[in-house]
Amino acid sequence: MRVFLAFLLAAAFAAAGTPFGIVIHGGAGTVVPGRFTPEVEKAYREGLEKALAAGYAILEKGGPALDAVEAAVRSMEENPLFNAGVGATLTRAGTHELDAAIMDGATLKAGSVAGIQHVKSPIGLARLIMEKTPHVMMIGEGAEAFARSQGLELVPNTFFRTPKAVADLEKLREREKAKPTTKDTVGAVALDRNGHLASATSTGGMLDKLPGRVGDAPLIGVGTYADDRTCGVSCTGWGEFFIRTVVAYDISAQMAYLGIDVDKAAHASLDKATKLGGPGGLVAMDAKGHVTMPFTTPGMFRAFRLSDGTGAVRMYADN
Amino acid sequence: MRVFLAFLLAAAFAAAGTPFGIVIHGGAGTVVPGRFTPEVEKAYREGLEKALAAGYAILEKGGPALDAVEAAVRSMEENPLFNAGVGATLTRAGTHELDAAIMDGATLKAGSVAGIQHVKSPIGLARLIMEKTPHVMMIGEGAEAFARSQGLELVPNTFFRTPKAVADLEKLREREKAKPTTKDTVGAVALDRNGHLASATSTGGMLDKLPGRVGDAPLIGVGTYADDRTCGVSCTGWGEFFIRTVVAYDISAQMAYLGIDVDKAAHASLDKATKLGGPGGLVAMDAKGHVTMPFTTPGMFRAFRLSDGTGAVRMYADN
Repeated sequence: MRVFLAFLLAAAFAAAGTPFGIVIHGGAGTVVPGRFTPEVEKAYREGLEKALAAGYAILEKGGPALDAVEAAVRSMEENPLFNAGVGATLTRAGTHELDAAIMDGATLKAGSVAGIQHVKSPIGLARLIMEKTPHVMMIGEGAEAFARSQGLELVPNTFFRTPKAVADLEKLREREKAKPTTKDTVGAVALDRNGHLASATSTGGMLDKLPGRVGDAPLIGVGTYADDRTCGVSCTGWGEFFIRTVVAYDISAQMAYLGIDVDKAAHASLDKATKLGGPGGLVAMDAKGHVTMPFTTPGMFRAFRLSDGTGAVRMYADN
Repeated sequence: MRVFLAFLLAAAFAAAGTPFGIVIHGGAGTVVPGRFTPEVEKAYREGLEKALAAGYAILEKGGPALDAVEAAVRSMEENPLFNAGVGATLTRAGTHELDAAIMDGATLKAGSVAGIQHVKSPIGLARLIMEKTPHVMMIGEGAEAFARSQGLELVPNTFFRTPKAVADLEKLREREKAKPTTKDTVGAVALDRNGHLASATSTGGMLDKLPGRVGDAPLIGVGTYADDRTCGVSCTGWGEFFIRTVVAYDISAQMAYLGIDVDKAAHASLDKATKLGGPGGLVAMDAKGHVTMPFTTPGMFRAFRLSDGTGAVRMYADN
């Protein structure tokens, strides 16, 4: 009887396993019902689902959180619907300048790029910088020279262009607003079977930005952070205000110093950036698999899937 | 009698006034007795004294902390002894790429540049980005195009070159070490008569860095941060490790969330970066004028002057 009970317990533990999972976002903004045709809405949800599946499949096989967040973000970089990689917004000069960052919560190693114009996968380059150089952040032509030396795929700047991105810039100009517009970003946070967290973020940046402008996404501690002892975070929103309030690290710091949970910390940090003037959103997860996806914009493309079977794909405030 | 006592108290308060002052650094590293000739040591101390005086004079006249830190940092940018502006280290490609950041503790406004090759004063450009654009951080050619549009003085890249910087790179190559070397940075934190804090940092970055590499100096929350409610911070050291531990904001966060003082918080944050592998140093000050100048390298060029008459100019561990 004793042996049988022990067997049952072991079987139950094996079934539950160590929690793992992934949470992603495809940008926060005026994502409200009625804005999209049913076809476009469906395409967004399928895009999120595809990115989620790419990351989750890696975790399920026991792969590292770093691989999962890179795969999820890369999937959204390749999807023209999202403002990262193909589909990136245009700068005031009509060019694309891409930013990305990745961080490993187990070692606090990180890689980051900004001002990328010709590297097909900015998140892939950020990962290579983390793994193959003594540096964390590289920008512009220097970063692209390193990409070339590593055999990464280079593309013409127009590779990233979509009719929608061109139309967005034209629409903004028609309204003759010099005011910068918040724009989407994509990101992911994953927890693997070994209990390690990782985060990744990639973006085309703010629509109509001045060439050379860098937002929060590629800045470690601001748009991207991961520490197994606290949480992983990836942000989206009006970058300038996120920078000034150091959102991602502030969440980690609140958990470490105030002992509060990831959900409470994430809401508090996001509220600070929003009150300063910059609405947005973020996804975060702690090392036990607690997920939070707060936003102060009307909506946010977001999704998660956990090993306990829970999951969701949402874009509007309530769905 | 009562009136006389009240008068005496008021007079005493007027004499003491609101505390104000400035603390600066000229980089942390192997600053040990015997390394420099007496003439060079004297020149370093005079350089620190000059930068300190430039900032303090502004504060004394009631000027803003922002002006004081900019003036102090600009003085060190113009001084070929320090690794910022003229005298900047060389990249692996034999060029100069300069980074800088400035932040206003009253408003949390910030400006930052990286990968600057032709703007005479990187800290001046960072300030303009803070004040004249909706952005916080700008890099490379985009940042320089903005500098041109603002009438800033542009110079050939060789303007920043000094015989010492060339010799340093040659010496490193002779030793055939691919390993990156920590290098100096300059920075300042000031508190003005209105109780506002500001921070500024400027650097040529790590000697022999890959072109495009960005260190901690220009990253808001990492090498530079200021918040009147907590403190102002400017860091120097092995940037990659400072980025991964978000040093400047971690000090502010510890003060805010743990309620500890600036000195204790600064030591704790610096120790984290050092334990991860990156020694360095920093200067920090709170809104009451408490100053701290910790470092985990053998020495650090540093100085401070406060309105209570205290002050010092030091470079070695004990002097």
